[in-house]
Amino acid sequence: MKQKMKILVLHGPNLNLLGIREKEIYGPLRLKEIDQKIKKFSKMEGIEVSIRQTNSEGEMVNFIQRAFQKLDGLLINPAAYTHTSIALRDAILGINIPTVEVHLSNIYAREGFRHLSYVAGVSVGQVVGFGVNSYLLGLQALINHLKRK
Amino acid sequence: MKQKMKILVLHGPNLNLLGIREKEIYGPLRLKEIDQKIKKFSKMEGIEVSIRQTNSEGEMVNFIQRAFQKLDGLLINPAAYTHTSIALRDAILGINIPTVEVHLSNIYAREGFRHLSYVAGVSVGQVVGFGVNSYLLGLQALINHLKRK
Amino acid sequence: MKQKMKILVLHGPNLNLLGIREKEIYGPLRLKEIDQKIKKFSKMEGIEVSIRQTNSEGEMVNFIQRAFQKLDGLLINPAAYTHTSIALRDAILGINIPTVEVHLSNIYAREGFRHLSYVAGVSVGQVVGFGVNSYLLGLQALINHLKRK
Amino acid sequence: MKQKMKILVLHGPNLNLLGIREKEIYGPLRLKEIDQKIKKFSKMEGIEVSIRQTNSEGEMVNFIQRAFQKLDGLLINPAAYTHTSIALRDAILGINIPTVEVHLSNIYAREGFRHLSYVAGVSVGQVVGFGVNSYLLGLQALINHLKRK
Amino acid sequence: MKQKMKILVLHGPNLNLLGIREKEIYGPLRLKEIDQKIKKFSKMEGIEVSIRQTNSEGEMVNFIQRAFQKLDGLLINPAAYTHTSIALRDAILGINIPTVEVHLSNIYAREGFRHLSYVAGVSVGQVVGFGVNSYLLGLQALINHLKRK
Amino acid sequence: MKQKMKILVLHGPNLNLLGIREKEIYGPLRLKEIDQKIKKFSKMEGIEVSIRQTNSEGEMVNFIQRAFQKLDGLLINPAAYTHTSIALRDAILGINIPTVEVHLSNIYAREGFRHLSYVAGVSVGQVVGFGVNSYLLGLQALINHLKRK
Amino acid sequence: MKQKMKILVLHGPNLNLLGIREKEIYGPLRLKEIDQKIKKFSKMEGIEVSIRQTNSEGEMVNFIQRAFQKLDGLLINPAAYTHTSIALRDAILGINIPTVEVHLSNIYAREGFRHLSYVAGVSVGQVVGFGVNSYLLGLQALINHLKRK
Amino acid sequence: MKQKMKILVLHGPNLNLLGIREKEIYGPLRLKEIDQKIKKFSKMEGIEVSIRQTNSEGEMVNFIQRAFQKLDGLLINPAAYTHTSIALRDAILGINIPTVEVHLSNIYAREGFRHLSYVAGVSVGQVVGFGVNSYLLGLQALINHLKRK
Amino acid sequence: MKQKMKILVLHGPNLNLLGIREKEIYGPLRLKEIDQKIKKFSKMEGIEVSIRQTNSEGEMVNFIQRAFQKLDGLLINPAAYTHTSIALRDAILGINIPTVEVHLSNIYAREGFRHLSYVAGVSVGQVVGFGVNSYLLGLQALINHLKRK
Amino acid sequence: MKQKMKILVLHGPNLNLLGIREKEIYGPLRLKEIDQKIKKFSKMEGIEVSIRQTNSEGEMVNFIQRAFQKLDGLLINPAAYTHTSIALRDAILGINIPTVEVHLSNIYAREGFRHLSYVAGVSVGQVVGFGVNSYLLGLQALINHLKRK
Amino acid sequence: MKQKMKILVLHGPNLNLLGIREKEIYGPLRLKEIDQKIKKFSKMEGIEVSIRQTNSEGEMVNFIQRAFQKLDGLLINPAAYTHTSIALRDAILGINIPTVEVHLSNIYAREGFRHLSYVAGVSVGQVVGFGVNSYLLGLQALINHLKRK
Amino acid sequence: MKQKMKILVLHGPNLNLLGIREKEIYGPLRLKEIDQKIKKFSKMEGIEVSIRQTNSEGEMVNFIQRAFQKLDGLLINPAAYTHTSIALRDAILGINIPTVEVHLSNIYAREGFRHLSYVAGVSVGQVVGFGVNSYLLGLQALINHLKRK
Repeated sequence: MKQKMKILVLHGPNLNLLGIREKEIYGPLRLKEIDQKIKKFSKMEGIEVSIRQTNSEGEMVNFIQRAFQKLDGLLINPAAYTHTSIALRDAILGINIPTVEVHLSNIYAREGFRHLSYVAGVSVGQVVGFGVNSYLLGLQALINHLKRK
Repeated sequence: MKQKMKILVLHGPNLNLLGIREKEIYGPLRLKEIDQKIKKFSKMEGIEVSIRQTNSEGEMVNFIQRAFQKLDGLLINPAAYTHTSIALRDAILGINIPTVEVHLSNIYAREGFRHLSYVAGVSVGQVVGFGVNSYLLGLQALINHLKRK
Repeated sequence: MKQKMKILVLHGPNLNLLGIREKEIYGPLRLKEIDQKIKKFSKMEGIEVSIRQTNSEGEMVNFIQRAFQKLDGLLINPAAYTHTSIALRDAILGINIPTVEVHLSNIYAREGFRHLSYVAGVSVGQVVGFGVNSYLLGLQALINHLKRK
Repeated sequence: MKQKMKILVLHGPNLNLLGIREKEIYGPLRLKEIDQKIKKFSKMEGIEVSIRQTNSEGEMVNFIQRAFQKLDGLLINPAAYTHTSIALRDAILGINIPTVEVHLSNIYAREGFRHLSYVAGVSVGQVVGFGVNSYLLGLQALINHLKRK
Repeated sequence: MKQKMKILVLHGPNLNLLGIREKEIYGPLRLKEIDQKIKKFSKMEGIEVSIRQTNSEGEMVNFIQRAFQKLDGLLINPAAYTHTSIALRDAILGINIPTVEVHLSNIYAREGFRHLSYVAGVSVGQVVGFGVNSYLLGLQALINHLKRK
Repeated sequence: MKQKMKILVLHGPNLNLLGIREKEIYGPLRLKEIDQKIKKFSKMEGIEVSIRQTNSEGEMVNFIQRAFQKLDGLLINPAAYTHTSIALRDAILGINIPTVEVHLSNIYAREGFRHLSYVAGVSVGQVVGFGVNSYLLGLQALINHLKRK
Repeated sequence: MKQKMKILVLHGPNLNLLGIREKEIYGPLRLKEIDQKIKKFSKMEGIEVSIRQTNSEGEMVNFIQRAFQKLDGLLINPAAYTHTSIALRDAILGINIPTVEVHLSNIYAREGFRHLSYVAGVSVGQVVGFGVNSYLLGLQALINHLKRK
Repeated sequence: MKQKMKILVLHGPNLNLLGIREKEIYGPLRLKEIDQKIKKFSKMEGIEVSIRQTNSEGEMVNFIQRAFQKLDGLLINPAAYTHTSIALRDAILGINIPTVEVHLSNIYAREGFRHLSYVAGVSVGQVVGFGVNSYLLGLQALINHLKRK
Repeated sequence: MKQKMKILVLHGPNLNLLGIREKEIYGPLRLKEIDQKIKKFSKMEGIEVSIRQTNSEGEMVNFIQRAFQKLDGLLINPAAYTHTSIALRDAILGINIPTVEVHLSNIYAREGFRHLSYVAGVSVGQVVGFGVNSYLLGLQALINHLKRK
Repeated sequence: MKQKMKILVLHGPNLNLLGIREKEIYGPLRLKEIDQKIKKFSKMEGIEVSIRQTNSEGEMVNFIQRAFQKLDGLLINPAAYTHTSIALRDAILGINIPTVEVHLSNIYAREGFRHLSYVAGVSVGQVVGFGVNSYLLGLQALINHLKRK
Repeated sequence: MKQKMKILVLHGPNLNLLGIREKEIYGPLRLKEIDQKIKKFSKMEGIEVSIRQTNSEGEMVNFIQRAFQKLDGLLINPAAYTHTSIALRDAILGINIPTVEVHLSNIYAREGFRHLSYVAGVSVGQVVGFGVNSYLLGLQALINHLKRK
Repeated sequence: MKQKMKILVLHGPNLNLLGIREKEIYGPLRLKEIDQKIKKFSKMEGIEVSIRQTNSEGEMVNFIQRAFQKLDGLLINPAAYTHTSIALRDAILGINIPTVEVHLSNIYAREGFRHLSYVAGVSVGQVVGFGVNSYLLGLQALINHLKRK
């Protein structure tokens, strides 16, 4: 394994509204606070993390592509694009970097159209339903997975 | 209620082609002329209106998010994204501002894949099929709804 | 265009219970009050309006047929028959008079079986979800449509 | 077999508009003219025929029930109720009189929702798509069927 | 609770043929005999019962609406309309009176299209498959339910 | 219209077994006897009829193609190929000759996979369920249709 | 009929939690109290009743099989296995003893996957939605059914 | 919160084969080794853990029910019963204890019938696809969830 | 039973390619070798066997029809026509001779469109997945079945 | 190959009722008689056979697991669990021993829910519809398969 | 690669009607003219081409089988059999020769039942919608593909 | 026709990864090399070509719109957006310029969700499965189509 493990954390559409609205569903933390927890956790684990958020499907694809040959893993919360974007799936297939999918809320306890994930089939695994903890557990899972390789 | 009611009118993809092509379906007016009618109507009603058009789903989400805590209502014609975008639905849920959905053509008299609207479930109501009039009637409906609150 | 525009307003099943029960869904107005608003609006617009309500699908068909060659437009709230009556669709096809469909509640935000409308495919357009306002906006849309012809 | 064969011809909803509108689909004959052809044909065949039309599903059920133990056969064009009425099916099952289903237009060449017939499963057979001729051929088929019994 | 409990028993389409035809399915009793059993049982229970039968969906809605604020409960056998009538469902929702659904035959052991009940979702419960006994057991269930309230 | 009307009667697979087996479903007549009835009827009507039977889908297509520019109408009982053959549909579309579809048994009262007809959508009409009479009535319908043209 | 009628009452999975949790759905009575009511009612009716509860599908099949040639009827609340167990259906078919299916809650007013019952198709009938009363009414229905035989 | 947190870890059918067969899918660890890791982790976290495995759906329900009022949380890998057992869902609903669902393999990247989980809808969240790590991460998620309450 | 039992073995489309291509799926034997095994087995069992192969659906129907009143049983491997041919089903129904369906490969472990068999519903039984052994076991099953009759 | 081939014959739920009830479907033999035939056949073939029957899905899984590394093949009639048990499928996958699935009746000629087999996809093959003969033929197929390996 | 590349061009059912009827869909060229263009193009490319047309599915299978070990590639327009023939698919699988599928019209812009191709899954690729050009482009694609191998 | 034919070649999401990853599916060429081949081919054909690639759906719509009244044809590989974008379809409808859809891989031989193309219905035709050749053949088809107009 290379010197320091590098991971991209990618937040999908509307996650920049976290902690501002619908707190009863997504929890009280703002995205910035979540990002700080992710960074703190990464520091403790001795890994390098870069974090991006965008509301655009195409930009998400761009961010994923840029990870190619530069990063070791991808932690992604595709939010609404989980259920509609084959382009995200193809981007992950394309760069072929171990990917973990996380969701703040339990998507399987919500509307039927949120039960399908185009990303799940090309991910190592999923962590779903634990609020900000989904990110931290997912990150830990990804690190473990990368170490085991 | 605050001093002057503020409303965002958001046009979805391909609506910038209005009045140029497919006039038999969407009517002879150009988008600019529609916007002028909307502005004139808004002035008469004593409200402030801002108008945006974009072909990008992510940018539509951006426009909606910017309305948060600044505007009172959203009048949206999501066009093709009506049927495919859960991200728009989540954005509207996120900012939680009364929303009215409008369509120029009668989407329920067209192809089956145009009969599903992800936006309808989080809107106050819909005005569908009356050409530019859909916008004016939808605006009136939105104003009435906001006044009644 | 003939001397005075004539329009039939047709209320479907259970709308005679309006303002009596389920006010949180359908609003506090009784059907009579809605009819008065419709009449007042019609007077202002200088049109003639006749109003009917029935709980019977067959009688709705009868009312629609009687409009043939006598009236200029039809404003219909088919209520529960929206989703189950092909006979209404055929009647509207049969008399071939411009028709506008209205609903008090947002049928697209309710149970799945309320998302299908047999009437929508043969209407000019729909106004959905604005309570009594759906009727007034729908009437205005119909008048505009008839004038434009 | 009894002295003179008695048959009920039952026209469903909107058939009273025949020859007035949508002639390109249903042909130029008015319902009265069709009825005269049916009566003339019945006279030639030496049978007694009674003819009813109604737009009401419940009244169709009533007409069918009255045939019980009085008539020998039923010739029915259920029109729009073909596709939505289990009550008609149950009424025919209930009186258990040989029934022939006819349609003026070819329902299998039209919208998908017109391809299902609740009546077909309890009929002797169907004659579909020949305009007024569907009635005459259906009547002949019914008479032949009754004679063979 | 008021002085004497009042209940409407509503028979749907084709039930007036009971005991006349298809006895192997629906049993040998005529509707009148069933009504006498219902009345006798009601007398024993000290309640007031009114009984109606109609083949018309719209008239069923009318009967249900008339129960509003006059009666305490509704015992309904919607027969064929069970599977096709949203108008009945809305009427029951509209008057908001405890309702019990009964069927003579076991609808879940018959054709697939008889397995869906629009009424079941707005009823207290169902009694299905016990012939005339379905009515008596359903009535008892309704009385118990009303007493417990 | 040309001198003498010419019609092809085409029997599909397994119809050569008629009158030999499954008489309770298809009736006691052998195919030869049916053909004689068809010929006798044709003579009376003053038309020329040619009759073919084959168990092969491809040969049915061949027979239909040969009718092109030689014959005036096609009377077809596609039997099992009704439900599976798009090639027959395309052949009928290809020669564009008025076609009537007949079936001995009531296909709409049998297994679900017999309810779909690829031929119905390109036929003038259907006669279904009357045994050999389906042929004679279908022939009469076809002759009438051709005369009216 | 033999000396004393013998009936098995069989409670399915999780019914041993009754009265302990989810009382707002299933009522406040514990299973023991329900069993006492069933026993008291049985005594009054002069029948012998044995009662079993198990969380195991296989054990339910065992209990049903043991009823063969020993008991006269089966009163079953299959609970969750209602919707997933063909083995229960086959066991009931196997012993061929009149069976009545009961449910405490109205399964037709709950999630879609609770609307299918594999047991219903092989039962005499169902009593659904009346809490403990479903058992007593179902028992009465079963006794009546057995007496009538 | 009580003195020491108590959690049940429940392994479903065929998990006792772990590390023996299909190691390429489920990893090389035997169930005992997984249990040791779970115990070690629990000790570090200062919680009490009990672990059960069974191949029987009914016994899984029994184990869950016994947790009622004794334990604080449930960590469950329902394996094959994930996709077929409503009884498990009802048991979890019944005891109403926070539940986390884990899977060794990524069920969303396997056969379609493994994409539906009856348990997901009543769980706090899911951890899927990380081998034995799914258990440890799920346990951590459950502990965090219980502490936050 | 007649003197010597006579059985037709009918191979469907592409089976003449056996042993030449796709040996990993269908085994290394050529069709001729399979036929020799069938003949040898038939001799041992003292029955007469005739064997046919064709790629044509219509010719398969012809072969089956010729068996009528001449042969005692049919052993059929309909290959691709298994899933698409209602004509084969009707032919087997038509001649009404005990039929056993065999397949070389396990069709239920292949693509979804190979899971439906139109022939299975009119066969005595199926033997699937054992290569050439499917024929021999199927033949034995057929002989046993014929002897038992 | 080891000294003597060892095979487990596993009977699923309700097969212990064989020969007692529903003989017209499953034949007149009792399970004991079937087992004797299996044993006799095994002796002739020089193999060792152990036979188990249970009504419990979990116990079936247990029996299959015990075969691991002890037995050479599995002959299974999963009965009702054929259509509902993924746990059986996983158990067979888990022990990875050649498996043959048998059914007494022709499941493809019965109700639709009996046409799906979760076991078929992981079996060598199926023998279906020949009563007790299905077991003997299936056993022979399994022995041949094991010998060929 | 061998001396001269040999390719079979196979036209499916009704293509012999080209240029005679439905020219607005399929273009004005007769099949012969298309064949001449194919031959001319082949000569220019220095390959050998044989061309066949048939209306019979079985004969198409025959033509494909004959290509085995004699030809290098297959250019096929399966026409109507595209959507219904698994036998064609199996034949192509069987001979395992690179295959290109072509269609004159854009099948994806026509009726829904023309959107499924059983042949596509076993072809190298498709050329669809360019009239006779589909053949020439498809041929070129096939030649390129064969050369690259 | 104007002086020099102008065509836009539009590459969809992830196509910029070509030749870098998943070469076994999409071939070894980089997008730049493909573009060079396209340009070289265009030069030979004497046409002007502009080439764009983007990962954004909205930007693809922008590129298409800019072609309006400037370009003669559109060659598009919508990649993942093929299956999810109605906006692309509407853009092509909007500018109404002849469009050819190409795909590198055979989308009909991949996952089911890749079999639907929203673009196909508004294109002249498709070229699918030939790697970079799909572009060249598609370009040739487009040029021929434009010349024929």
